[in-house]
Amino acid sequence: MSNITGDRLKVHIFGQSHSKAIGVTIEGLPAGLCIDMDRLYAFMERRAPGRSALTTARREADKPEFISGLADGRTCGAPLTCVIWNQDARSGDYSDIRDMPRPGHADYTAYVKYNGFNDIAGGGQFSGRLTAPLCVAGGIAIQLLEKEGVRICSHILSISDIRDTPYELMGPFPDVSSKALPVINDDVIDKMRMRIEEAGKDLDSVGGIIECAVEGVRAGLGDPMFDGIENRIAGAVFGIPAVKGIEFGRGFEAAYLRGSENNDEFCLENGTVRTLSNNHGGILGGISSGMPIVFRTAFKPTPSIARPQKSVSLSRMEEGILKIKGRHDPCIVTRALPCVESAAAIVTADLLL
Amino acid sequence: MSNITGDRLKVHIFGQSHSKAIGVTIEGLPAGLCIDMDRLYAFMERRAPGRSALTTARREADKPEFISGLADGRTCGAPLTCVIWNQDARSGDYSDIRDMPRPGHADYTAYVKYNGFNDIAGGGQFSGRLTAPLCVAGGIAIQLLEKEGVRICSHILSISDIRDTPYELMGPFPDVSSKALPVINDDVIDKMRMRIEEAGKDLDSVGGIIECAVEGVRAGLGDPMFDGIENRIAGAVFGIPAVKGIEFGRGFEAAYLRGSENNDEFCLENGTVRTLSNNHGGILGGISSGMPIVFRTAFKPTPSIARPQKSVSLSRMEEGILKIKGRHDPCIVTRALPCVESAAAIVTADLLL
Amino acid sequence: MSNITGDRLKVHIFGQSHSKAIGVTIEGLPAGLCIDMDRLYAFMERRAPGRSALTTARREADKPEFISGLADGRTCGAPLTCVIWNQDARSGDYSDIRDMPRPGHADYTAYVKYNGFNDIAGGGQFSGRLTAPLCVAGGIAIQLLEKEGVRICSHILSISDIRDTPYELMGPFPDVSSKALPVINDDVIDKMRMRIEEAGKDLDSVGGIIECAVEGVRAGLGDPMFDGIENRIAGAVFGIPAVKGIEFGRGFEAAYLRGSENNDEFCLENGTVRTLSNNHGGILGGISSGMPIVFRTAFKPTPSIARPQKSVSLSRMEEGILKIKGRHDPCIVTRALPCVESAAAIVTADLLL
Amino acid sequence: MSNITGDRLKVHIFGQSHSKAIGVTIEGLPAGLCIDMDRLYAFMERRAPGRSALTTARREADKPEFISGLADGRTCGAPLTCVIWNQDARSGDYSDIRDMPRPGHADYTAYVKYNGFNDIAGGGQFSGRLTAPLCVAGGIAIQLLEKEGVRICSHILSISDIRDTPYELMGPFPDVSSKALPVINDDVIDKMRMRIEEAGKDLDSVGGIIECAVEGVRAGLGDPMFDGIENRIAGAVFGIPAVKGIEFGRGFEAAYLRGSENNDEFCLENGTVRTLSNNHGGILGGISSGMPIVFRTAFKPTPSIARPQKSVSLSRMEEGILKIKGRHDPCIVTRALPCVESAAAIVTADLLL
Repeated sequence: MSNITGDRLKVHIFGQSHSKAIGVTIEGLPAGLCIDMDRLYAFMERRAPGRSALTTARREADKPEFISGLADGRTCGAPLTCVIWNQDARSGDYSDIRDMPRPGHADYTAYVKYNGFNDIAGGGQFSGRLTAPLCVAGGIAIQLLEKEGVRICSHILSISDIRDTPYELMGPFPDVSSKALPVINDDVIDKMRMRIEEAGKDLDSVGGIIECAVEGVRAGLGDPMFDGIENRIAGAVFGIPAVKGIEFGRGFEAAYLRGSENNDEFCLENGTVRTLSNNHGGILGGISSGMPIVFRTAFKPTPSIARPQKSVSLSRMEEGILKIKGRHDPCIVTRALPCVESAAAIVTADLLL
Repeated sequence: MSNITGDRLKVHIFGQSHSKAIGVTIEGLPAGLCIDMDRLYAFMERRAPGRSALTTARREADKPEFISGLADGRTCGAPLTCVIWNQDARSGDYSDIRDMPRPGHADYTAYVKYNGFNDIAGGGQFSGRLTAPLCVAGGIAIQLLEKEGVRICSHILSISDIRDTPYELMGPFPDVSSKALPVINDDVIDKMRMRIEEAGKDLDSVGGIIECAVEGVRAGLGDPMFDGIENRIAGAVFGIPAVKGIEFGRGFEAAYLRGSENNDEFCLENGTVRTLSNNHGGILGGISSGMPIVFRTAFKPTPSIARPQKSVSLSRMEEGILKIKGRHDPCIVTRALPCVESAAAIVTADLLL
Repeated sequence: MSNITGDRLKVHIFGQSHSKAIGVTIEGLPAGLCIDMDRLYAFMERRAPGRSALTTARREADKPEFISGLADGRTCGAPLTCVIWNQDARSGDYSDIRDMPRPGHADYTAYVKYNGFNDIAGGGQFSGRLTAPLCVAGGIAIQLLEKEGVRICSHILSISDIRDTPYELMGPFPDVSSKALPVINDDVIDKMRMRIEEAGKDLDSVGGIIECAVEGVRAGLGDPMFDGIENRIAGAVFGIPAVKGIEFGRGFEAAYLRGSENNDEFCLENGTVRTLSNNHGGILGGISSGMPIVFRTAFKPTPSIARPQKSVSLSRMEEGILKIKGRHDPCIVTRALPCVESAAAIVTADLLL
Repeated sequence: MSNITGDRLKVHIFGQSHSKAIGVTIEGLPAGLCIDMDRLYAFMERRAPGRSALTTARREADKPEFISGLADGRTCGAPLTCVIWNQDARSGDYSDIRDMPRPGHADYTAYVKYNGFNDIAGGGQFSGRLTAPLCVAGGIAIQLLEKEGVRICSHILSISDIRDTPYELMGPFPDVSSKALPVINDDVIDKMRMRIEEAGKDLDSVGGIIECAVEGVRAGLGDPMFDGIENRIAGAVFGIPAVKGIEFGRGFEAAYLRGSENNDEFCLENGTVRTLSNNHGGILGGISSGMPIVFRTAFKPTPSIARPQKSVSLSRMEEGILKIKGRHDPCIVTRALPCVESAAAIVTADLLL
């Protein structure tokens, strides 16, 4: 199946871009948890569209409504279900693409898998909008993790060819979440903004890379082989639309290093075993080492572009030209940070429960 | 848990480097399958050590013995269990590391997780040796896939800084599996070999990248969100020791492209919908597009190096110097190709069943 | 975890008796299915309270609202989520039992498991009300099964000591679903009714047994050992509150038979292998034989009775007397038939998908 | 799939009656556990055939060989795999039934499911012999549980119409495991033995009921709805061949009681909440109450009987008479007690981990 992730903390996402509602059911939360709703809304606001000139003008109320799982304002052990009502859905925009699949989207693959019955409006269940309930689960998991001394943060490592300062793998990991463009080096903000605006003017789009860190996970969590932390985070992160790659610690760069460069030697720090460097990104043999977990996620450029593109009429089985209408983000990376943090938070909370 | 992967085709791996045996139980194979044992042995031989001067001298008989799941030489519907007996195990080599964890290995994380009861000999359950039963499952899955017109291949994309010609994402994908160093461009063979030998002489090691392609998967397989093909392949591939990154299609490179460059336009080819390019690597929305599935996997350099390294005595909680004895591959990438192919095959067979 | 059942057809139930809503998310339904809403409502009406003088007066609107998973009135491959809003919830009735657990209920066990944060109102997540979303899933599964020639039916085998005519295990299985008391032998209706009314007058309750049959399942479905049809149906049926036993075919009675009596000999019927009797209840080795699947489920008497009962004050840790207020069914068996059918339907649909 | 049960403690059974070996892989055991092998053998001996004149003469060495998961004689966190080699396998006995399915066996259903490729020898994977690895897992789980103060026991409640004294549901539960016929009331031993011998002389067989108790499980374990303790135990117990029914606490009898009779009132006992009776069998809402868990399991009579039976030739599709050769237990109930205990132990250990 598809929309469930997690083991002890199970997150089950439902909805389509233009269904009545989207939402999430979360099982396994400890009973008695008091969710700080203001913080949750603030977290979700970070992925909301329409925050700046850089994102789509579609407005979403996106206020999550909790319909089960709470009693007297606290989690009660029952599955926590939250729905977000779809408003401002302009289905009329999507009539053309029902016949001609959009390049870079799941229109064609869904058409084949679901025998043409897939919901095409707004991308249906493949829409980036489904990351809103992911962020509900993630935002709650983050609140849970904080009680355990775990902190999650992320920044935009790159948009197009403009590159932020990467994290020091040993930390510290500056909190840049309140910036409109969450980067470490403010000097790149204007350049990134320009790349996005240029792409928008060219009826085009750009991609980018998000770097995420999880601090404060104690050593010894996770499992070997197919249930390692890398496997689990990858399994969650590839659930975010447009992700095409993930790497941990030094990642692909490690393939160019020698063992003596890449190995992280052990030392003692205040009576605790630590490593002198963190090329391993906090995970050895699938299990946490106590060092920060750091990973990078590659996002392809938004596939929705206003330029005419070649496609095929599925009804007439002939080639043609598709022109996608509507407003679309020329870059979704700026909104994807809380999604990546959510994926990491859900997995980490699952390990800790 | 940890050692089980797959849904309809379940692969369950067991064993440690120096336990009596290692092995695998495979559930979900169709009944009536006749396994070509010679081809299976030949496939496994590709990951066996001791094939050339480039790999460790430890000899493994590694003949898989099928102890259940067959009747009259065919699969009978019952779980197929295969064991490989551990011979030539020199436990004496591993006495030091019981106290001082090896940098880059899971010694320390396993020590914490298992309260010091982890099997340290040869790396225990974290040993690369556990990829032998993975290849049993993978080799059988490959035979199953061939009947469905699916072919899996891989090549070494890079070792250290020496880079092979990458795959054309549209194919064709030349079969280089019989080469001692499976690369497309023979000109890089000597250079790669030199990098490995240099590293060996320096008591050091090198990493590399493997590129893998799955051809012939029909459109419409896979699932959205957390059960997409990317999620599943990543979930299996990170089960191979030393993997630190994975990317699909253009992968991280896509983050630097514009949408108009990265989108793969649709066309008709003999009445079938295809794409004009394959930057998406055969997967859109987690579902196969009918185009080849292509992904790259980054391997860190072998953590076992003979150089003295800083570590910590866990019994005395004091820093010290560790010198790893024994023979170790200065590069495991050359042996990892069938492992990556196996991970891809197991996932693909699971989708097709 | 707890509220998910099924493999290919996953049913995930959420909600509490007095949460804003209860509901269900169903994954794995084939795309393109047109749900007959009138028939679904009619099916659900069979478990609704307030239908007759025999059941509680609490009225439930219980109109399921589908908030995702449909496009143009058909399933679209996305998870189907349906909510039922809780109205007429009188939380005031439940103040006493927060401190004194009701005998026969999950009040105390939930109190321990959830550290006192369990939702006590109306029984919270343990309420029989949660069988309404089960019936949504079941009602849809039944519509799916009918297209495959599978039919599910049930009758009240007994209420207290009043016993209906049991099914002939070979069939036919008369459809009695439209009767107010769904029994085969109308002569027992008045007696059963009297047992229920007597119990009500005595501020007491009665239990009973439901017999269910699944006709038209082809041979060869299911799996051996832990995933047999018996295991699966039992796993679903014990999800219904108050169920304390299940048996298949001749069930417990078979323990008193000889092999020569209990074995069902094979014969040919119109070129198909059948059995001459059906003591095995349609399942051999966990796999369907093509004969009707027949099972019986024991329901304990409603634990909510108005009589004073001994209990313990959890806050003061002292013994005391509890008197449960509110209106309660003296017998829930009459409303449980569609719940049992739903459990059977969900499992059978899972097997067929 | 089929042969895996459990969540945190996963038990994966493999093998066929006449494959090279049968066995089990157990994941999730705590590291550092020292298995008392003598006690394990003694436990397994209770299910071994050939112990008395009442069981089949086939001798099984059945010494489990642990091939992975141990280091220095203790569990090391890696999956524990144990094999039992099949000796004394007389495949020649099973030639006839390949064509004519045996009534009451899975021969026909497996034939359909596996397209005729099922292993027919000795019943293949459906053989009662597969309960030997179940008992390996169960025997280890029992040792684990004892450290947590949990004790599991069982007795034969009935064979044919001869009935032992049932357990007092509140306990105590006498240990009768060392008796050749484990019953509470020794007066029934001779009568039960006679029933078995009579059946054997008549070329027939008898069934029976086993009652099992789990003492010492603390309150608050388990989960609601589909993952309740009843669901889990039923899911494991129906994995034992010949089981056709299960009931908890008062079980089917509760259907004949009034609420005031069946409800278990709460009291205080040394400051602990207890119930005054245990009709609920230790489980309320799927969660343990702290009272003993008691359940009964119905076994049908051994389907292998030497009498001629009607069957169908699958190759010629014509009816005929089958005569089963070989030696078979006229009653398997006497050997099934450790199997039932194992199922209960595996589930209970899973809850406690």
